[in-house]
Amino acid sequence: MIEVLINGVRPAAAAHALDAADRGLHYGDGLFETMLLSKGRVPLLSDHLQRLAHGCVRLALPGPDLRVLEQEIQRICGAARDGVVKLVLTRGAAGRGYAPAPTASLTRMIALYPPVAASSFEVTVRWCGIRLGRNPHLAGIKHLNRLEQVLAQAEPAAAGADEGLLLDSAGEVVSAVSSNLFLVRDGALCTSDLQQCGVKGVMRGRVLRIATAAGIVVREGALCPQDVERADEVFLTNAVRGLRPVVALEARRWKVGPVTLQLHGELQRQLD
Amino acid sequence: MIEVLINGVRPAAAAHALDAADRGLHYGDGLFETMLLSKGRVPLLSDHLQRLAHGCVRLALPGPDLRVLEQEIQRICGAARDGVVKLVLTRGAAGRGYAPAPTASLTRMIALYPPVAASSFEVTVRWCGIRLGRNPHLAGIKHLNRLEQVLAQAEPAAAGADEGLLLDSAGEVVSAVSSNLFLVRDGALCTSDLQQCGVKGVMRGRVLRIATAAGIVVREGALCPQDVERADEVFLTNAVRGLRPVVALEARRWKVGPVTLQLHGELQRQLD
Repeated sequence: MIEVLINGVRPAAAAHALDAADRGLHYGDGLFETMLLSKGRVPLLSDHLQRLAHGCVRLALPGPDLRVLEQEIQRICGAARDGVVKLVLTRGAAGRGYAPAPTASLTRMIALYPPVAASSFEVTVRWCGIRLGRNPHLAGIKHLNRLEQVLAQAEPAAAGADEGLLLDSAGEVVSAVSSNLFLVRDGALCTSDLQQCGVKGVMRGRVLRIATAAGIVVREGALCPQDVERADEVFLTNAVRGLRPVVALEARRWKVGPVTLQLHGELQRQLD
Repeated sequence: MIEVLINGVRPAAAAHALDAADRGLHYGDGLFETMLLSKGRVPLLSDHLQRLAHGCVRLALPGPDLRVLEQEIQRICGAARDGVVKLVLTRGAAGRGYAPAPTASLTRMIALYPPVAASSFEVTVRWCGIRLGRNPHLAGIKHLNRLEQVLAQAEPAAAGADEGLLLDSAGEVVSAVSSNLFLVRDGALCTSDLQQCGVKGVMRGRVLRIATAAGIVVREGALCPQDVERADEVFLTNAVRGLRPVVALEARRWKVGPVTLQLHGELQRQLD
C-alpha cells in the first residue's frame, strides 16, 4: 500500500489507521472496488462507482457521496501514472452484535497500490475443488466476505495454473476466483448470470455492452462444466488485468479465437 | 468497547488501532470468539480457545500461542466482574490480492465490552427469508464472513421476534441467527450437524456433552422446518446468553419443557 485515506484523512500511520470497532473487520459488513489507474486516470471509474452504489442499496448501506469518493480517488492518485486504487466502504464502527447501530456512519478507505506485475496475455485455468455457497442476497455485489476466494486461490496456484474456475454448491459454473468467465459457442457469447453467487465485474459489464453493440448474440444464464469444456473460445475478464484468453483448462487446449480478439481490440480502444 | 489490545499492545486510541492493510478487513480472512465474563472469570475459556485453534487449522492459519491469548484475556478483563470479551484473529496485514503473503503474521485483537442487557429467559423466534449458502469448507467455524447474519438479523427484529431461525439454500434448518438451535422429540435431543453451514457454538458443544452424560439420546443430523414445528421442546444456546427456551415460533406455542429445564439446570451448575 503506497498511501491511504480514511474518511478523507491521511492517517499518521497506515498501521494505525482503522477503528478497532469497524464492522468491516468484525463481519465483513461492507463493499470494495479494485480499480486500474492507467496513464494517470481510472478509465472504468464511473462503472465502479455505479456498482458500489448498487451494492449499498443491496446491503441497505446509506449511499455514499460519489462526488466525494471521486475527489478522494483523484487526490490519492496525485501525480501517479499507473497503479491500482482500492476503495473499501464499510458500515462503520459500532458496538458488538450483528444489528447495525442506527447512528453509525460509513467508513471509507481509499488506498493506492503499485501496478500489478506484468503477466502473460494468455492464461491457464483449472477447476477448484472448493465450491461457492449460493445466496441470492449477496450474489453479484463485491462485498467483503471473501473467505471462499481466499481458500480457492490456493488451489490453482498449487497446481501451477494461473486461475481457478469455481462451481457453486449446485454444480453450476460461476466464474474464476478473481475474474469473470466468458465462453463463445457457435458465435454466441455466454456467461453466468450470477444470480446465486459470484461478482458482476465492471469489466464483465463493459464486455457485455461491447458485444451487444457489435451485434454478437449474448446469453447470460446457467452454465455447466461441460459448456466450458465444449466452448470454441474461453476468456476471463478482470478490472485490473483486462480481458485474457484461456488457452488451457487441465487437458483441454484452445487457441485464441476471433471473438475473443474482436472484443479485446474494442476494449483496448475504449479504455486507452 | 471498553478497552482493546492489538497484538498485546493497548493502542493510543481504539479509533486508530488497526492496520489499513489487515486481511480481516479486506476479506474477512480470520476468526472470532465472543466470550462471557462472569464473576471475574471466563467459564468457557478453554472451549473457546479449542474452537479457535480448530478454526485456524481449517483456514490454514498458523496456530496462535494459546497461552499468550489466555494471558491477554486475563489482562484485558483486569478487575472487571462481568462483561463480554471478543477475540478477533486475522491473517494479518498484507498486500492486495487473495493470496496470503507468506511472511504475514497474525493480528490478534482482544476487546472488552460491557455486559449484555438483561433479557427474558424465554424467547420468541420466526423464520428468516434469507437463507445461508452451503459451504462445507467454512461450516462449523466462527469465521469473519458474517454478512448473511447481518442481513438476517434485521428480519426478526422488524417482526418483533427475539431471534430468527435460518434455513440453508437447500431448505435444511441450520440455527438461529446468533444462537444454535435444539429440539426435543420423544425425549431425544436433536440439532443440525452443521456440515454445510452455521457455527458450532461452544455452548452447543457443552449442552451436547451434558445431554450425553445424562443419558439423553442425542441426534446430530439434517433437520427440516417441520421437525422444528413438531418438536416437543425447542431451545437456543449462545455462549453469552446461555440456554434459552423458545416459547413461540410464529403461530406455534410451547411451554418450557422438562428436558430443557434439566439441561439448563446442569449448565448453570457447571458454569457458576
